[in-house]
This record gives sequence, C-alpha cells and structure tokens, in this order.
Amino acid sequence: MHRLRILSKHGLTYRQLIEAAALSDLAIVDDESCDIVFGEPALIAPALPQLPSVRWVQSTWAGVEPLLDPALRRDYALTNVRGVFGAPMSEYVFAYLLAHERRLFEKHASQQERRWDAAPPGTLRGKTIGLIGVGSIGEALARTARHFGMRVKGYTRSSEASGDVDEYFHGDTLPAFARDLDYLVAVVPNTAATRRLVDAALLAALPARAVFVNPGRGSSVDEAALLAALRQNRIAGAVLDVFEREPLAPEHPFWTLPNVRITSHTAAISFPEDIAPLFIENYRRWIAGGPLRHRVDFDLGY
Amino acid sequence: MHRLRILSKHGLTYRQLIEAAALSDLAIVDDESCDIVFGEPALIAPALPQLPSVRWVQSTWAGVEPLLDPALRRDYALTNVRGVFGAPMSEYVFAYLLAHERRLFEKHASQQERRWDAAPPGTLRGKTIGLIGVGSIGEALARTARHFGMRVKGYTRSSEASGDVDEYFHGDTLPAFARDLDYLVAVVPNTAATRRLVDAALLAALPARAVFVNPGRGSSVDEAALLAALRQNRIAGAVLDVFEREPLAPEHPFWTLPNVRITSHTAAISFPEDIAPLFIENYRRWIAGGPLRHRVDFDLGY
Repeated sequence: MHRLRILSKHGLTYRQLIEAAALSDLAIVDDESCDIVFGEPALIAPALPQLPSVRWVQSTWAGVEPLLDPALRRDYALTNVRGVFGAPMSEYVFAYLLAHERRLFEKHASQQERRWDAAPPGTLRGKTIGLIGVGSIGEALARTARHFGMRVKGYTRSSEASGDVDEYFHGDTLPAFARDLDYLVAVVPNTAATRRLVDAALLAALPARAVFVNPGRGSSVDEAALLAALRQNRIAGAVLDVFEREPLAPEHPFWTLPNVRITSHTAAISFPEDIAPLFIENYRRWIAGGPLRHRVDFDLGY
Repeated sequence: MHRLRILSKHGLTYRQLIEAAALSDLAIVDDESCDIVFGEPALIAPALPQLPSVRWVQSTWAGVEPLLDPALRRDYALTNVRGVFGAPMSEYVFAYLLAHERRLFEKHASQQERRWDAAPPGTLRGKTIGLIGVGSIGEALARTARHFGMRVKGYTRSSEASGDVDEYFHGDTLPAFARDLDYLVAVVPNTAATRRLVDAALLAALPARAVFVNPGRGSSVDEAALLAALRQNRIAGAVLDVFEREPLAPEHPFWTLPNVRITSHTAAISFPEDIAPLFIENYRRWIAGGPLRHRVDFDLGY
C-alpha cells in the first residue's frame, strides 16, 4: 500500500479528484508515514525534513525552486507539471496584445469622457512576435500568434520543435532576433542559463514600437535595464506578471509607469482539474515501475 | 475604355493600389462620365443622381444602406465587400472576451492602487459562445472560439456552413439557443429580418453571467430592452460598437453604465490593402463578362 500526502492550498479539491480515480494500493494520509507527496513546492519544502519515507514528489507547479535549496534532500524522484499552461498563458499574452492593438484602455478613457472616439485600432495581422523559449508554452503562443496572422520568431537553446515558428535563432543571435519585433515574450524556466537574458543589450536591439511581455520568470529580466528602457520610452511598453521579488513592493517604480501593465503572478493560473490527471497518470506509471513523466533534473532545475 | 470614379475618403490610396494593378481598358476619372464607381456608399448615394452612365458600383463597405434609399436608382449592379472583416472582427471580439476573463480593467485598477492582486482570472476554455449570424464574420469568430477551446452555438436563418459551430439553431429556437451562453455575439446584416432580433425576450433567456457583444449593426438590438437588462444586472455586461443612432449622444445612459464597454464603430475597420483587391478581381470579371462577386440584392439589402 502506498501512502500519499497532499500539501496544497487546494487540498480538498485534489483529494476529491484523486479519490474519484479509485487508484489501486493508495491511501491518502495526513502524517509523516507518506512515501509520495503531491502539492505546492513552497509547502513541501519546509515539511520535507520531517518526511523520511518520501520516494516521489509530484509538484503542482512548473517551477520547483523551493525544492532546489541545496540544504534539502535530493534522494527522491521529483516531477513537475508541464503542458497544462499553454492555454492559460496564451489567453494572458493575447489578452494584452489585443488590448494594445485595439487600444482598450484608451477607448475606456474616451468612454469615461462620453467621447465618440473614431481613432482606428491596430491589428495583430502582419505583426511580428519573438518568443524567448519555445517549450510547450512557447508552442501554444506560436500557434495562437499564427491564428491571428502574425509572423513568429523563436529563440531557443537548440530545439526547433514547433512548426508554427517561422524562423529560429540560437546562441549569440539575440540582436538579429530582436531587431524587427513588435512583441517580445519571455517564456523560459528559471535556470542559470536564462538569468537576466533580457538585459540592456537585448532591450536596446528592440524597435521603439516593441512591447515586452513577461509571463514567465522574474529572474530572466534585468529589471534595472528594463526600467531605464521604459522610462526613456526606448520601447513602447511592458506587460509584467513576474518579478525578481514578489509581491512587488508598493514603492517599486514599475507600478506607476504609464507604459507598464502589471499583474500579480496570475498569468498561468493552474486549475486542479488540469493538474490532478498528471498525478494520476504518473501514479499509474509509478506502481507499474515505468518512467515518470516530467521528471525534474535537480542540477538543471527543470 | 471603362471609366472609373473613386468616391472614398481613402481615394488617393485606392487610386495608387488600382493603378498598380495596371488593369486593361480602364481610366480613372473625376467627372460624371464614369460607368463604374468604387467607394463608400455614404459618399456615392448623394452623387448617384448626377452619374447617368453608371452600370456598376463597388462598395468599400459591407453595409450599403445609403444606396438602398427607395428614391435612388437601382438599375445598376451593386457589389459590396465580404470576407475581409472576419480577422479584424475576431480581434475585436476576442480582445473584449479575453479582457473580461482575465479582468484587465480590474487588474489595471489594482495597479493604480499599487496593490498585489492575486485574484485568479477566468478562462475562455470550456465557455460557450452563441453567434447570431454565421456568415463569413461568424465563421471567423467560430474558428477563433474553437482555437480557445470554447463551445460554439450558431443561430442562422437556415445555413449550417461553418464546421466550427458545435450546434445550430434556426427559427423560433432563440430561447434554447440563449439559455446557457457565456457570451452572445450578434453579427448579422441590417435587414428587416434582423431588426431588433436582440430583444427583451432573448435577453431574458440569457444566464445572468452572460456578456452581450455587438460589433455588427445597431439596428439588430432593442436598445431600451438592453438598457433595462444592464441596469438591473440581469446580464453581466455588454460590449457595444454600433448603435441605433451614431455617434452615440453624449447624454446616452450607455456611456456611464459600469458594466458596458463602448467603442465607436471601429470594430471592423477596413484596410484599403484588403478592399482594393476585391475591386480588382471584380473588374477583371466585369470586362470578361463573368458574374461579379458579392452582388447585393436590393430587396434583401445584402
């Protein structure tokens, strides 16, 4: 009999979803006897030292940073969730891209003045989007971009997996990648290689019309360089969901820049109904002795 | 030699685009000798009585109401533009649907208070959209709705042409069509049959969570009934681009309702680069003696 402990703020929902799957040889427990843990890394990390029998942890998040703390054990299988964030990320990114083209906030201001505002909107059609990172989320963004008639450029370490990307870039080609973008979107994991990838040089290579969107990881941006570019209107704007330090402090200058839209790390909200099936599938693999899906490499960090 | 007169506020652009096509046997003229007219119906209608030789009018708009005035001649071929508004309409409608789900205006208000706002967004995935009218615009909306994982219901006179519609409704089935919609979008031409199709009965059949979007024709809505439904929060909101009388008067109560978003008849902006090719193709058909595309029936009005 395996013993599962759920450590999640959606614990009750997950319990119901997992019980409904009637998995064999599985008991859900609330104590330190568990050999499997399912939940949020931020809740699991502090509990881990008191859970000596754990052999597998399934994260409900994509990011597992709290479990990468070198002071913590690494003698168990760690799996995260992938492939479920493409749809919500696409909704987030294209909500703001369409709002920019269709001038939603400007039209709203006109409405408040009761003013018939015939200023023509822009269009996504024919515009160019550049994706830093073309994993499962980048693929979903590329697909939506193509749906709206955009040209898609992708910057990756080496992979060229998505057929919806018109042109791939790797290595030291970031300036060529950036030079004609209307939108730059960073969707990379938090690793040493992606740290401050969006820096002063990359921002300087963008056209003045470009809007930067970061729904991914705060660590991938040099925030001081971004702030300078936005203050001097060297790029048209930014849509930021993630930051180096969260929550963003009330005194941070990002809040009040007129060309910045801030959301509070809600771009890729995960729904238990999407996450639970990943645990259920992995549990069936676990008891069958098969390889787990979405295994995390502790050294790479993803 | 055919003689073309261009009556459009984009006259110079159209002249350049048409000249670039080097059409045979065509002179562009500025006087009453023309046998072909290309332009906006609102500009053509008052000029028509002074253009005795006209045999064909190509409208740059989809709507040709000004030319349907019974006092005007109907002894010429009238063609309009179709098939070019699907993409901009889709951008307009989904800009506002995504803004509603992702709470763009609420998040903006939080930003102005420098408040970290972790309220989770909604999603289009799994929601239901109902399209009144599934012509070329409705088809484009259905395609985008499916892209975002929505269920699509379509209400049409009789056609069932789009494969992206999950369920079709006709005749007196509007209450069944409306009863489970998250979004109702009207994209019908202005005809006797569509006049005030969105009335008190249809609005009463909608769930309280529903948002009504009208990027089509003001005439298709009973505005008094809509105002009452919005004031009493019997539906969640409305996004209105067109009205019975435009421009919307500054004292109209729509402007200040908190659950209404107003734009100023800019949903389906047309770009000369999209419209000119339709004239050019039709001109080639005209001189070849073939049937014109997008011929308008003066009695049906479209």
